Amino acid sequence: MSNLNIQITLSEKKKDKLPTDQLVFGTTFTDHMFIADYIEGKGWHNHRVVPYAPITLEPSATIFHYGQTIFEGMKAYLSEDGVVRLFRPDQNMKRMNHSADRLSMPQIDENHALEALVELIKVDKEWIPKDPGTSLYIRPFMIATEPHLGVSASKSYTYMIIMSPVGSYYEEGIHPVKILVESEYVRAVAGGTGNAKTAGNYASSLKAQEVADREGYSQVLWLDGIERKYIEEVGSMNVFFKIDGEVVTPALNGSILDGITRKSIIDLLKHWSVPVVERRVSIDEIREAHRTGKLDEAFGTGTAAVISPIGEFRYQGELFYVNNGETGELSAKLYDALTGIQKGTQEDPFGWVVELNKK
Amino acid sequence: MSNLNIQITLSEKKKDKLPTDQLVFGTTFTDHMFIADYIEGKGWHNHRVVPYAPITLEPSATIFHYGQTIFEGMKAYLSEDGVVRLFRPDQNMKRMNHSADRLSMPQIDENHALEALVELIKVDKEWIPKDPGTSLYIRPFMIATEPHLGVSASKSYTYMIIMSPVGSYYEEGIHPVKILVESEYVRAVAGGTGNAKTAGNYASSLKAQEVADREGYSQVLWLDGIERKYIEEVGSMNVFFKIDGEVVTPALNGSILDGITRKSIIDLLKHWSVPVVERRVSIDEIREAHRTGKLDEAFGTGTAAVISPIGEFRYQGELFYVNNGETGELSAKLYDALTGIQKGTQEDPFGWVVELNKK
Repeated sequence: MSNLNIQITLSEKKKDKLPTDQLVFGTTFTDHMFIADYIEGKGWHNHRVVPYAPITLEPSATIFHYGQTIFEGMKAYLSEDGVVRLFRPDQNMKRMNHSADRLSMPQIDENHALEALVELIKVDKEWIPKDPGTSLYIRPFMIATEPHLGVSASKSYTYMIIMSPVGSYYEEGIHPVKILVESEYVRAVAGGTGNAKTAGNYASSLKAQEVADREGYSQVLWLDGIERKYIEEVGSMNVFFKIDGEVVTPALNGSILDGITRKSIIDLLKHWSVPVVERRVSIDEIREAHRTGKLDEAFGTGTAAVISPIGEFRYQGELFYVNNGETGELSAKLYDALTGIQKGTQEDPFGWVVELNKK
Repeated sequence: MSNLNIQITLSEKKKDKLPTDQLVFGTTFTDHMFIADYIEGKGWHNHRVVPYAPITLEPSATIFHYGQTIFEGMKAYLSEDGVVRLFRPDQNMKRMNHSADRLSMPQIDENHALEALVELIKVDKEWIPKDPGTSLYIRPFMIATEPHLGVSASKSYTYMIIMSPVGSYYEEGIHPVKILVESEYVRAVAGGTGNAKTAGNYASSLKAQEVADREGYSQVLWLDGIERKYIEEVGSMNVFFKIDGEVVTPALNGSILDGITRKSIIDLLKHWSVPVVERRVSIDEIREAHRTGKLDEAFGTGTAAVISPIGEFRYQGELFYVNNGETGELSAKLYDALTGIQKGTQEDPFGWVVELNKK
């Protein structure tokens, strides 16, 4: 890894920090941010840590009109002994490059990106909360900045990292959510951008989420856009089912996100010798498993919640309850194991965790 | 229409204007822009015309991460007698609201939006080029600005109008383009955002366009994302075929854009008693029409080019030439008629044109 030569400009005035129980996800940001610029022909340059501040763009910048933007989401954890831990950050950087390719955006140097992240975390280390369940949410993103109204890839980009201290996702204990199976709107199809982490996927999902909110459901379950029967994702999480003792998750088919929590769950299950398969799963199969009493558990997986147990599905008026609306045994075990590895309270047999300042 | 009370701040220094033959589409902007702000609970406010300048946003603004943004494209024409003409601007504002609904963004007051546009054009009237084929390209757009990393609709927005003088699309005369039929990537499916004018649709199209560029084709023809055989759009235009004397265009199916040029072409053809139908059109039908010598003409339609004749399609290695690669008679007639109405050199039997300063 070469030396990035990151220019650091420290903030003159530090912001006040909220108590962790008052943190609202993604609204408070640390004192600094990382920025690098890209221009076609010159590549990435001007890597810098600067005070967190608004950014200025031309009104004709590509991001506003043609939507070239990608992002990642990850967390840093601080343990009692002062060690900062990142969970599989290499996977985020790798996926960022996958997304960049799909959106015709430039590749980043994955090692440099990690180096920049570590530098930023060092500068803002005091922002990482320590309380149980808390962490520092990290948002690397890239936007297209060329001032040109034309449907073609931008010739200039900005890569940034911003960070937000987040409270516990499960302040009152982990509890299952109610999910509405979406029949009208489609998230993505193969050949589209569903397996890239890009803004358009999220923008298109809001309308269905509005309906779910109105009806008292916390997320939607997306079905495939072609036959409208195969399960894709739940909200912005991957989804798993435990059916008759076997764990099943939709296979990566080009339209769902290759989740890092998802792949970690699969590895954990294999490590435990719990049967797990990636394949097509239809909503009819879930209905049938429910009817025959074989739908043991269901849960979403993602960086924010890690594991989000599902207690109920509604599909075209029918209700499928899962495990009497309670958190399943395996869901809880997976949550404990994964968060334990992330925070360093449990052994990490996979080498997933990067410790930043171990003595 | 109520009084909008638009605050006008004039630019202190006017920019130099390029000769129209040096204008590159969407790169030069006029001296001013229109801005209005929206906050949930307060609605639209602070309507203003200000000097054209960069805009400043929080790094966590929704637009950068979750892609809530919509836009429109339209043109103003200046005729020899000094009259400024807009073409069906009500249709743009109506479509903007359709897009806003799909993207969970606030509605605009269509009359106010038109009033704002007229005000901005008045201020920058000297920027409208007069030479044949030239016009002032107008880009209204709305972006989500809430500083919050959360997958939910933003609570604040900015609506803007920027304007760019554009040279003739056909400097060396109208000439047919070569089109690559896209088999791998998908633009949109019903249930997605294909019929909204939102950034994500364009971002997802760039990858296929890159391939087309490399292979010497100017645009791609999108097939449906489900059966991969029904024709949707060409690049960012709607598409028409003249087959055995009848004009055919893909029906609005939820995944293609409800083009204003498209609907105007249909109306013109009906006015001329030329048979025209909106229905599903498969690529196999085009291949068969080509094989039997019945593929008379093909053309794309959109605000930028108005009519873009197609001289060749390539589909899975096969080439379909249209009208010996030359501009068809009907394509040319439609181009002349529509641009004539837009510029005021031909009668407008439909009441499409809005004249801003007719004596």
